[in-house]
Amino acid sequence: MSPSAVLHRQLHQAPTLALSGEGSYITLEDGRRILDATGGAAVSCLGHSNAEVRQAMIDQINQLSYCHTAYFSTKPFEELASVLIESTGEKMSKVYIVSSGSEAMEAAMKLSRQFYLEKANPEPQRTKFIARKQSYHGITIGSLSMGGHKFRRELFEPILLPNVSHVSPCNPYRNRKDGESNEEYIARLADELDAEFQRLGPETVCAFVAEPVVGAAMGCVPSVPGYFKAMKAICEKYGALFILDEVMSGMGRCGTLHAWEQEDVVPDMQTIGKGLGGGYRPSPPDN
Amino acid sequence: MSPSAVLHRQLHQAPTLALSGEGSYITLEDGRRILDATGGAAVSCLGHSNAEVRQAMIDQINQLSYCHTAYFSTKPFEELASVLIESTGEKMSKVYIVSSGSEAMEAAMKLSRQFYLEKANPEPQRTKFIARKQSYHGITIGSLSMGGHKFRRELFEPILLPNVSHVSPCNPYRNRKDGESNEEYIARLADELDAEFQRLGPETVCAFVAEPVVGAAMGCVPSVPGYFKAMKAICEKYGALFILDEVMSGMGRCGTLHAWEQEDVVPDMQTIGKGLGGGYRPSPPDN
Repeated sequence: MSPSAVLHRQLHQAPTLALSGEGSYITLEDGRRILDATGGAAVSCLGHSNAEVRQAMIDQINQLSYCHTAYFSTKPFEELASVLIESTGEKMSKVYIVSSGSEAMEAAMKLSRQFYLEKANPEPQRTKFIARKQSYHGITIGSLSMGGHKFRRELFEPILLPNVSHVSPCNPYRNRKDGESNEEYIARLADELDAEFQRLGPETVCAFVAEPVVGAAMGCVPSVPGYFKAMKAICEKYGALFILDEVMSGMGRCGTLHAWEQEDVVPDMQTIGKGLGGGYRPSPPDN
Repeated sequence: MSPSAVLHRQLHQAPTLALSGEGSYITLEDGRRILDATGGAAVSCLGHSNAEVRQAMIDQINQLSYCHTAYFSTKPFEELASVLIESTGEKMSKVYIVSSGSEAMEAAMKLSRQFYLEKANPEPQRTKFIARKQSYHGITIGSLSMGGHKFRRELFEPILLPNVSHVSPCNPYRNRKDGESNEEYIARLADELDAEFQRLGPETVCAFVAEPVVGAAMGCVPSVPGYFKAMKAICEKYGALFILDEVMSGMGRCGTLHAWEQEDVVPDMQTIGKGLGGGYRPSPPDN
């Protein structure tokens, strides 16, 4: 086989070609049928080649694939947004569609900033973000800056944003002390977040950002009950936004469509991805 | 009509629904047939609903939509990459596919950094980028930091990257002096770029980044002949990378598939988008 023109993860070895997919299986060029235990890196939540999805895509492709959002909207775009808003019990009000989870986190950062500029009493001094250690929020420079995954940040540290700081995640298995109750553990984490707001100057913080259940960066560890409510309360105390990154944990993976439904909190903003496209990449009208 | 659940560009006014597209025309919900003079914001270069593209998409959807790039590649992915590399006359060697033009610029920034870290003699001190005023490189925080479009940067200035600086673009209509020849104008711009390298410390610069033809940020102004060769020479003098953003200008819009073919230079990296998908959003195997 000639060297691939693709910049693969390994420069000197091209991955095997996958020819087709059906349900949970992928068929390779050499005839092997592989159980896709990754779910397509948590993307292909409906399995491969779902007949209903395929037909919906084909019907739309035969109508219209793309038009410029400055002038036009489309029915599937409006319908998807309506379904998503209804799924929050109208606790959230608007949907903004971009091309990837990383772009969603970038948009959340920019929307946070813009929110404070467009308030009746603007707060232009809000420029900082507090995220958590052992988190992953994406690969672009803004989203990677939010992430607290040391190894993924390491090479790029000198070109990451200086306005993001990181507090401890909620990982009871590793970090709750012997004899410490959940309530005491939450109080300790709330104190840490409060102290970080104080250190930065609470009036300079746009938002606190966390994943309801962290993905590979911490190993799918759920928080202790009440943790997210306590974190949201700190945000409200200082007038900062509470943003949940559900790109990996959302869209049903935690038993409810939104992971925050399990936590009895509603975020000011949430990001979703992966399972939203289900491996079929619906056509967001970006530009 | 009930308020849209989409966060449109105007909060209190939803754009008209587009139902279908054919060639250069879009048909709206109210029956109007509109000439799409934007080409879908420079995206829909093959027109809407091109039969050959639709059939290719449908054929692939019926085979496989997505699989994880850590383990698998796909034929269309490999074929697209091969076609693109062949189109450079093998002057470039690898293709990396992401979800948008903004992500492509983010990847170019990170690849620049990684290039200097993985050289036989690593240069970890290279962390800075030189871009141009009146440019647009995307909406994510890294790509917006590269852009020199004042209005688009303005709200977000305090959360943009501090390691990007901007030199003058090549705009002979506005900025070439009376009686100044093209050669003199190029020499002046080369001196400015050289001085910027000197000001930053040439050993700290990853790359110089420019659009072969700037889009809306400057009004589709081509550079004077020889300008890009001169800029590349400065990059080579200081061992920095020369990156061309062809997201808007590439894929045939300048008369050759790559805009740099018109300039008799080969970039170390180039980004492409818009026309690459042609409004059909091919399915890049990202994650």
